[in-house]
Parts: sequence; C-alpha cells; structure tokens
Amino acid sequence: MTTLAPRPPHPHGLFTAGEPVRSWTVSTAKPVRYEVAFTPDVLDPRNPALARAGAPAPAPGPAPARRLLVVETTVDELYGDRVRAYCAARGLDHAVHVLTAHERLKTMDAVFSVVEAMDRFGVARRSEPVVALGGGVLLDVVGLACSLYRRSTPYVRVPTTLVGLVDAGVGAKTGVNFGPYKNRLGTYHPAAQTLLDPAFLATLDRRHVGNGTAEILKLALIKDRALFRLLEAYGPRLIAERFQGGPALRPVAREVLGRAVHGMLEELQGNLWEHELERVVDYGHSFSPTLEMRALPELLHGEAVCLDMALTTVVAERRGLVRPAERRRVLDLMRALRLPVWHRLCAPAVLEEALADTVRHRDGSQRLPLPVGIGGAVFVDDLTPDELAAAAAHLKEYHARTAVAGHA
Amino acid sequence: MTTLAPRPPHPHGLFTAGEPVRSWTVSTAKPVRYEVAFTPDVLDPRNPALARAGAPAPAPGPAPARRLLVVETTVDELYGDRVRAYCAARGLDHAVHVLTAHERLKTMDAVFSVVEAMDRFGVARRSEPVVALGGGVLLDVVGLACSLYRRSTPYVRVPTTLVGLVDAGVGAKTGVNFGPYKNRLGTYHPAAQTLLDPAFLATLDRRHVGNGTAEILKLALIKDRALFRLLEAYGPRLIAERFQGGPALRPVAREVLGRAVHGMLEELQGNLWEHELERVVDYGHSFSPTLEMRALPELLHGEAVCLDMALTTVVAERRGLVRPAERRRVLDLMRALRLPVWHRLCAPAVLEEALADTVRHRDGSQRLPLPVGIGGAVFVDDLTPDELAAAAAHLKEYHARTAVAGHA
Ligand SMILES: NC(=O)c1ccc[n+]([C@@H]2O[C@H](COP(=O)([O-])OP(=O)(O)OC[C@H]3O[C@@H](n4cnc5c(N)ncnc54)[C@H](O)[C@@H]3O)[C@@H](O)[C@H]2O)c1
Ligand SMILES: NC(=O)c1ccc[n+]([C@@H]2O[C@H](COP(=O)([O-])OP(=O)(O)OC[C@H]3O[C@@H](n4cnc5c(N)ncnc54)[C@H](O)[C@@H]3O)[C@@H](O)[C@H]2O)c1
Repeated sequence: MTTLAPRPPHPHGLFTAGEPVRSWTVSTAKPVRYEVAFTPDVLDPRNPALARAGAPAPAPGPAPARRLLVVETTVDELYGDRVRAYCAARGLDHAVHVLTAHERLKTMDAVFSVVEAMDRFGVARRSEPVVALGGGVLLDVVGLACSLYRRSTPYVRVPTTLVGLVDAGVGAKTGVNFGPYKNRLGTYHPAAQTLLDPAFLATLDRRHVGNGTAEILKLALIKDRALFRLLEAYGPRLIAERFQGGPALRPVAREVLGRAVHGMLEELQGNLWEHELERVVDYGHSFSPTLEMRALPELLHGEAVCLDMALTTVVAERRGLVRPAERRRVLDLMRALRLPVWHRLCAPAVLEEALADTVRHRDGSQRLPLPVGIGGAVFVDDLTPDELAAAAAHLKEYHARTAVAGHA
Repeated sequence: MTTLAPRPPHPHGLFTAGEPVRSWTVSTAKPVRYEVAFTPDVLDPRNPALARAGAPAPAPGPAPARRLLVVETTVDELYGDRVRAYCAARGLDHAVHVLTAHERLKTMDAVFSVVEAMDRFGVARRSEPVVALGGGVLLDVVGLACSLYRRSTPYVRVPTTLVGLVDAGVGAKTGVNFGPYKNRLGTYHPAAQTLLDPAFLATLDRRHVGNGTAEILKLALIKDRALFRLLEAYGPRLIAERFQGGPALRPVAREVLGRAVHGMLEELQGNLWEHELERVVDYGHSFSPTLEMRALPELLHGEAVCLDMALTTVVAERRGLVRPAERRRVLDLMRALRLPVWHRLCAPAVLEEALADTVRHRDGSQRLPLPVGIGGAVFVDDLTPDELAAAAAHLKEYHARTAVAGHA
C-alpha cells in the first residue's frame, strides 16, 4: 500500500544542477471505514448502541468508559434529561457540553468552544469518541473540532434534524463558514458511527422538516424517480406529521428516509474526498451557498438549495433536457412542500457572482449538474448569463402567480 | 477499494427493536502521493521546479499559471526580490503574502490570515497550489490553511530553516498551538511537493541551525549510528558553516541531510496517519511539547527536544539499555552542538504533567520510546516518577558541571 521510492537524480529534467540530487516519492493510502445505522430508541437505556458507538471494543478492566457529549441547546432542552439518564444507566463517566448551533454560529469560534471542552474533559486520542447530538450545524462543527483535535479524534453523530438524518449525518464532510463564504473551512472526517433515530423529528418545527425534505427532493430529482413519486404522493403529509405518523404512514416515512440515505451513500462512497468534481449530489449547490450566506438568516440551507434546483430545472427545460410537464410537476411539488422557488436575491448579478465562486470551487469549470427529466442528471460547462437571467425571470413570474395559493 | 455494504438488521445484537432497521458500512481508502526532492538553486529562474511544483500538468492554453506565495517576513527580507524575479521570469501571475511566523504566532489567527489571502487571490481548488517559503512554523500554518480551505487545496513547501529541511518539510503534519498546548489543532495534509534547497541555511543564525541539528540527532540516536558518528565528527563545523562549507565539507553536509530526510521518510511512510502510536520518531517528543510551551519563547523546538532526549538517555542508562560510555558520548555531543541538556523546568511536577498529556495523546499508555545503545529504540509503558526525578537530578548536576566549558 505504501512505497517509498528514491528516484533517479534530476526529477526536473530540463534543469541540470552541477551535482546529483536525491528525491523521494511517498505513495500510500489512508483506510477509512464508517457506519451509518438506523437506530430506533437510541436514548432507551436498554439500547447499548450509543454507549458502544465509535469505540472498537469495550474498554478492558473495571474503569467506566468515558464520553464527552456535545448537545445542541434546543436538543438539550428537549432531550437533555434523557441523555443524562441514558449515560447514568449505562455507567458512562460523562460530561455534557451544551452548544447553541445555527447557521450564523457556524464559525471557528464554535469549533474552539468544542476543543476547549475536549481539553477540559481530557479526551484520549483514540478510545473516547465525542458524541454529537444536534442538527447539521452542530454535527459539522463537532466534526471539524474532532478532525483538528490532535490531528483527528473519533466522534459519533446523532442527527436530530431531517437535514442531519439524510445529509449532514451520513457523509464525510465537516465545516464552518468563514467571512462571507459558506463552508469555506473544513475537512473530510466522517464519524466512526452515525446513529439515525427519526423519533427526534417529532419535536422539530414544520419549516425545518420542509427544509430537510428539500435535500431528499434533490436526490429524487437527479437519481430516484420512485422517490419523487413518493414525495408527490406523501410529501406534505410526511412533513405535517414530522415523518412519524401512525401505522399507515410510518412505512412510507421509513421508505423515504431509507431511500434518501442509501442514495446519498451510493453517491458519496466512491468519491468521499471529491477527487471527482462532477458530483450529482452537488445538484442544488451551485448557486445556493452564496444565496444562503447573503440572505442569512432569512433562508435555511434546504430552502436555498430549492431555489437553486428551481432555477436549474427551468434552465434544463429551456435546453430541452426536461419536458414542460416535468418542470411543472417539479415546481408544483416544491410549492406543495412549501419550499421557495424564487427570492429577490435571484438577480443576474448575484447569480453570476455565485457561479464564479463555484467555478473556483470546481477548479476552473462550471461542472454544473442539470436535471434530465425527473431522476437523471448531466453536467454542463457552458451556462450563459442570459440563460440564468431568463430562468430567474420565469420563476419570478411563477412565484408571483402562485404566491397567493402557497407561500415561501 | 470502496464498498458500500448494506448490513443485516440489528447491528447491535443485544437490543431488539420492534422493526427491522437498515445500516450501511462505507469502506474506502484515500490515495496520497507526494514528493520530496533536493532542489539546488530553487530560485534560479532557469530552474523550472518551483514554477511547476504541485500542479500535475502545465495549464493548457496561453493563460499564465497563477500562484499565491506565502513568504515568512525574514525570508522575504532576505530572498523576496529573488522570489519575485523568479515568478516574473517564469511568467507566473502571482501574489506574495508576507507573514511573520515564529512559535508564539503559530495560531489559528495566522491560519486565518493565509485563508484571507487565498480568498483575495481567488485560488482555484486543485490547480493553483499555494507556495510556502519559510521555517517550520510557516510551513505548518500554511499547510493547515490549505488543508482547511475548501476542505483541502494543494500546496508546495520550500523550507528555509534546518528544522524545515529535515523535519517539518518532509512529513504530512500541519498544525498550530491552541491555548497552552503545542500543536493541539492540525491535520495530516502533506504538500504535493517539497523542494529542499540547503542554500537557504547560509543566512540562518547559529542557534537555529543548532536547533535543527537536534532533530537530526534524534534520528541518529534511535536508528542511525553512522549518522551519530558523522555528527560527532563534523556536527560543530557543519553548524558553524551553516551546512554550506567548501568542497571538503559539502559532501558531508549532503550526506547528513540526505540521511536525515531519508530516515525520517522511512519512518513516516508506513504510518503517515499515526494509526500506530508507537513511533520511534516521537523520540524526544514525550516531554518536550510541554517544556517548549511553558518556556516560550525561551526554548526553541529542537532545544526542547534535546532536553527530552537527554532525560530519556539517562533513564535508559539506569535501566541498562544504554551503557555509561554511550550516555557520556550522547551528552557530550549535545554539549558540543551547544544544545541544552537541562533546564529549570525539568522539575518532577512539570515532567509528570507533561507525561500525563502525552499519555492522552498516545491514547492511554506511555508508549515511551527509550534509546537502546546508540541507534536503537524500545517502547516502555512503566516509567515511574522516581526514575524521572533521578534522571533530572543527574542532568542538573551534569549541566552545572559542564556549564563552564560549553553553555546552553
Ligand atoms: N456535512 C454535510 O455533508 C452537510 C450536508 C448537508 C447540510 N449540511 C449543513 O447542515 C446545516 C443545516 O443543518 P440543519 O438544517 O439541521 O440546521 P441546524 O443545525 O441549524 O438546526 C436547525 C435548528 O433545529 C433545532 N433542532 C435540532 N434538533 C431539533 C429537534 N429534534 N427538535 C427541535 N429542534 C431541533 C436546532 O436548535 C437548530 O436551531 C447547514 O450548515 C449545512 O451546510 C452539512
Ligand atoms: N509538521 C512537522 O512534521 C514538524 C516537524 C518538526 C517541527 N515542526 C514545527 O516546526 C516549528 C519550528 O520550525 P523552525 O525551527 O523552522 O522555526 P521557525 O519557523 O520559527 O523559524 C525560525 C526563524 O528563522 C527565520 N528564518 C527562516 N528562514 C530563514 C533563513 N533562511 N535565513 C534567516 N532566517 C530565517 C524565521 O524568520 C523565524 O523567525 C515548530 O513549531 C515545530 O512544531 C513541525
């Protein structure tokens, strides 16, 4: 797996120094393995999953296992007692660090607060994974702190929002915003284990559930037509009932969440470090980082993603990639899910700036995913400012026309 | 290389939820490849190495290659004109970010300053490696900035100190200090290429050359007896002549530097991410992080490492691992190189605190490398406070006795 190859003199053939020089090539590979598991009743003291997660084997000897838990403030208010009772019942020597996390607090200062808690607790480097309970922001912040701490310590993710369950909780990325830029600083450092318990969604407000549904819709649009149909048929009810529901709805919720997680992992697993910059899961993420940051705190992450998807759906229709009837179904579903399809920031100058930063992010080319019908995708490098402006104008009109019925 | 394995229900066998649950295992490996090359005359405009380093192929088309260079303030004063002339001669569209770097400025604020320069320059994600010219601190800071920027961008290292040439420039680690802790935050993110040009050492002050020699001595002590003999025979002269020298000394300098780099890479390459926590190159790095930080700015990195090596050499002698004559040769060489063997911080309480943090760093065990003779090493887990105190007392006495002849 690793080779250390001393090379012949003069690697840079053109230049001949007076004396032979030595050079070496290090070639190796870093093995990475992690688990994502639906784990109902994760806070039930009879369930050992959380106490064991992320630590390869139970600690030998009578010393109790040690865990630092980082819990988002609202999650702590709602579930903190159960979290502490769980730790007590499982005999964990633990401390809880409560941290307020939302998009405007997604900063290095939040990371530093986690690092200081790790120092206070005296986290050991490999055998005491930090447990993160919260939404996507908290997971991204704790993930980055653990990634940086002693150049990497393990952690466990317990997502408590829908974005967390189907997206932030399942991949490898960590990150914080820096200056005006979304996720400008971060790493690839997946949690050793992610435990998915949809029961947390019961307490989430409607808008954040809709927000997470936008990321599910993303996957549906670029790779899973059956998932799209499920969202058409059940989306509004799933949101209204917070993906819980009685015996009739529960299997649907499970199917939708399972397809979303599976689809996401299918796309990520072969390209965990984004060596390939053409990523279908980047759909909806070409213009949205700039829109989200400019509108902060007005637009949630998934809402900004939805604006981006509406825009590119219309662009795709005008290129003949999506039929008019399909475009209508897509926009109508967005409306039915009460997701925004247009925003005053969707103006040519902002969109062009957004695209320019995305081109730098994609190393000099647009590599723009566009939908093909419903459930397919293609990449283009030649989107013009005129196409963008025309699509935005179309959506502004659609927005005005439909705003009476639904609303963003 | 990658498998996405949906697993059977109930990964946590003991707990049986009412319904089957789904789980996934992501298993993959991140390929990493980098080069370290002696590159004489790296700033000679006829030498294409620096202009090409880190970018796989010359950019297609007539657009000039773009490079952001981060140059340490003193290095900029000494070599800045040549750096700019090089870029101009090679037709690089470039900007130079000048940054003052020393141990007290090895902080996240320094990283942020590099990130802001990257934003201003508009670095593309993959094809515009940042070029870092400076000592170990600057390389570690730029490495961390590039590691975090868009979750990793490539960079090139041009070390200008001896520590940089034989150590900080050749491995994978980046890092900054946080609070009272040395290198508490960092990543593994090697430069795509490191270009080693010993000519930079000509302007380095004596003490910093001695400081780097301590890291060479480390390798000699735990794995390269021939290198030890070279240091005994030529060390003081190599330092006095800044590893330059005339036709007689130059081959010796080359041999010493080449052995040091080769030996370091041999140890790193199979364990780049420190999955194995017993690392012989951690020799001298068990007590020194705390000593260095407590003494800041009094002790340089290599000086703190030397204190640690002196201490463990005496411990090893008392355990019968090193003969008295060998211990004498080691301490005498440290003296001859004008490196410190004792410091007032080498007191039992400080040393025990230092060891406690190192035990957390090594995940709960000491994993303490001790020398075996000259050129060998062994790991122990049972060092006692008494042994530490006795060794420190011995060195205090040796220090007092020899301080008239040499000095720290
Ligand atoms: N790392 C990744 O791969 C990835 C993927 C997608 C999104 N993200 C990131 O995720 C973030 C968005 O995550 P989010 O939508 O979860 O937002 P969030 O983390 O801001 O959480 C939203 C709010 O929900 C509250 N909350 C959390 N759980 C709750 C519960 N069970 N009941 C009631 N309230 C609860 C929190 O207090 C928070 O204010 C963005 O920053 C985005 O960049 C990351
Ligand atoms: N990443 C790693 O694997 C690794 C390995 C070893 C050491 N390190 C780190 O390296 C740091 C020490 O590095 P260092 O000893 O180079 O110290 P340094 O970076 O502080 O440089 C020392 C001084 O030398 C000056 N300088 C640099 N090049 C010069 C030149 N050519 N001529 C004249 N002056 C010059 C600089 O202005 C600086 O003040 C420590 O922080 C240590 O943790 C990292």
